[in-house]
Amino acid sequence: MMAAVRKKRPLVMHITNYVTVNDCANITLCAGGSPVMTSQIEDAISMVGMASSLVLNIGTPDDSVIEAMVEAGRLANELDVPVILDPVGFGATPYRTDAVDRILDEIRVSVIKGNEGEISNMAGLGGKVRGVDSDSCSDNASDAVKILAERTGSIVAMTGKNDRVSDGNKVFILSNGSEKMTEVSGTGCMASSVVGCYVGTFGAGMESVAAALSVFSIAGEMAAEISDGPGSFKSALMDCLYNLTDEDITSRQRTGEL
Amino acid sequence: MMAAVRKKRPLVMHITNYVTVNDCANITLCAGGSPVMTSQIEDAISMVGMASSLVLNIGTPDDSVIEAMVEAGRLANELDVPVILDPVGFGATPYRTDAVDRILDEIRVSVIKGNEGEISNMAGLGGKVRGVDSDSCSDNASDAVKILAERTGSIVAMTGKNDRVSDGNKVFILSNGSEKMTEVSGTGCMASSVVGCYVGTFGAGMESVAAALSVFSIAGEMAAEISDGPGSFKSALMDCLYNLTDEDITSRQRTGEL
Amino acid sequence: MMAAVRKKRPLVMHITNYVTVNDCANITLCAGGSPVMTSQIEDAISMVGMASSLVLNIGTPDDSVIEAMVEAGRLANELDVPVILDPVGFGATPYRTDAVDRILDEIRVSVIKGNEGEISNMAGLGGKVRGVDSDSCSDNASDAVKILAERTGSIVAMTGKNDRVSDGNKVFILSNGSEKMTEVSGTGCMASSVVGCYVGTFGAGMESVAAALSVFSIAGEMAAEISDGPGSFKSALMDCLYNLTDEDITSRQRTGEL
Repeated sequence: MMAAVRKKRPLVMHITNYVTVNDCANITLCAGGSPVMTSQIEDAISMVGMASSLVLNIGTPDDSVIEAMVEAGRLANELDVPVILDPVGFGATPYRTDAVDRILDEIRVSVIKGNEGEISNMAGLGGKVRGVDSDSCSDNASDAVKILAERTGSIVAMTGKNDRVSDGNKVFILSNGSEKMTEVSGTGCMASSVVGCYVGTFGAGMESVAAALSVFSIAGEMAAEISDGPGSFKSALMDCLYNLTDEDITSRQRTGEL
Repeated sequence: MMAAVRKKRPLVMHITNYVTVNDCANITLCAGGSPVMTSQIEDAISMVGMASSLVLNIGTPDDSVIEAMVEAGRLANELDVPVILDPVGFGATPYRTDAVDRILDEIRVSVIKGNEGEISNMAGLGGKVRGVDSDSCSDNASDAVKILAERTGSIVAMTGKNDRVSDGNKVFILSNGSEKMTEVSGTGCMASSVVGCYVGTFGAGMESVAAALSVFSIAGEMAAEISDGPGSFKSALMDCLYNLTDEDITSRQRTGEL
Repeated sequence: MMAAVRKKRPLVMHITNYVTVNDCANITLCAGGSPVMTSQIEDAISMVGMASSLVLNIGTPDDSVIEAMVEAGRLANELDVPVILDPVGFGATPYRTDAVDRILDEIRVSVIKGNEGEISNMAGLGGKVRGVDSDSCSDNASDAVKILAERTGSIVAMTGKNDRVSDGNKVFILSNGSEKMTEVSGTGCMASSVVGCYVGTFGAGMESVAAALSVFSIAGEMAAEISDGPGSFKSALMDCLYNLTDEDITSRQRTGEL
């Protein structure tokens, strides 16, 4: 699937936070996509028509950014551009929770991708959120993705020690990755950008979302093997994803179905 | 010329986007300048008086940022601080096109630096813009820089496989660089920051703009030789520009005049 | 002390600039903390209650960000969450000076951490500020930290060739670090984030602030020994802080009291 992404070079439009935006742009390039970032509402609306997918990330939300997300998201729905939502910090503050609720009310979201705390909270199963990082390691992670997928009609992906992807029916479990991915800010956001590349190429489905998380986690695993700490890890993560081959995937991929 | 930049340490003021702003700050330091970034209008106006040059980059435009650009730009004109405009995504959305048109209407811009799509569009020759990346490889690149320089009175620089610089009369062609520069977000923005360093030291002219693009592209070429992918490339680009010597330039520089 | 920080994983809340925000998040992780960034006022207020410390950095100030700082800071005072202020560019523009004055009027700040120009200016001793970088190398650095600490009741830290920390009474002088730290944008901001980690773990005192600056400078010193330029230095700085051991500190730390 990787070759198809690299060939199509999907335009992945982001309305995202100002903390990890540069990493999202660069990981999109490394995954084979072409990133574009904006948060001004008119500019955003004009961009949607060119986009292969639209990633909404509420990492540093404010009123005008949320407004741009809703407007761009509505147009994306009209134009059948798939929307990926990263509900950063859902459950941490009422402002973020309200923002996500509004987005889900007004937009048809194709994929929701969050960490354990965020997805568990969205699924109504609780789960501790500490700032924007997940603190929970819930036993019911598979329930959470399934419940939330069923309720929203979205493909739901939860990243963590194991990644989980569900359409409300099945649950895929992906067991690649490295603990070191949690020691760099923005790997969750980057995962959503890679999902944007794959969904922008193949459409939103269990397979495209799982493939995206899989290549990203395999790259993380390989980067962990050659880096000395979080600084060199981030740089190696970019390099490894960029250089990833089908053989790397075949030899390393560990996925299963629940 | 490099030694003179490093000695003067020009204060390169940026009103720029939130995606690549950190890279712009760091490349300015590597080129020998001192970066300062702001987008609040009063703060920006107070900064202009200290600045050696002012870089305006519309990568993530919004109304208040454009307003700050216009006000700071006007004052820069009064104080003879050269203004460099990077019209990121010109032609991609009406909002960006309007922003650039307004800036050119209200400010005397010393240098316009864009990619092929942006400059071709500004010159009225068409050219496909895809998000904020150029998709065109026009035959008429040299025409575009010349036409736009003639019409605006600015020095016009177009980056691409070959870089072109024109004052409306002559066209310089610079053939350094590496394909890998397109695989990292923000190399175009960084190029504008380096132009800010050279124009802030020598004033705006064909020679200072060409020298800036030349050192940046040579650093890119050297970085490509020692890096393994986009992550390590960006880091190496900073290192190579910082460590660049006159011998590196002499032995590698490939420039010509049309 | 490092082990205690890594064990507690203090939540260091930042209201900060958009230039170096990603580096602040990552250095917080490397120091053993957990970063969270926001600038929307309601979101910020909800975050304060979870925070171990609150870092206010005026690197790219605007009205709404300053407002969020004041509101979050007031609540932090009520909840006894220590506040660290990084007065980036104090003295460079009236806007920044006014912002800092307002913050100091309305909030009890536990720690002020700036460069020589900023702290000297705040102490009323003059000192040249060039953009956001200090240009001064004042003879009276120790006076400046002491005077400002006495007047404000804050612990005051000044970074530079030597770092100084004062409570208005004593002055600690720290002599670690590397010139290379000035060749990367944001090392001053990162230092404040590390202070946030230590103050968030041990409370605000001469010792915790000095320990934070000390580990950061030692990491910088070690990074300088293994890097080739500013790009690789930043990456190595993250790695070295992350991997720092008590032996590294014992063998390298150079501190004294005036």
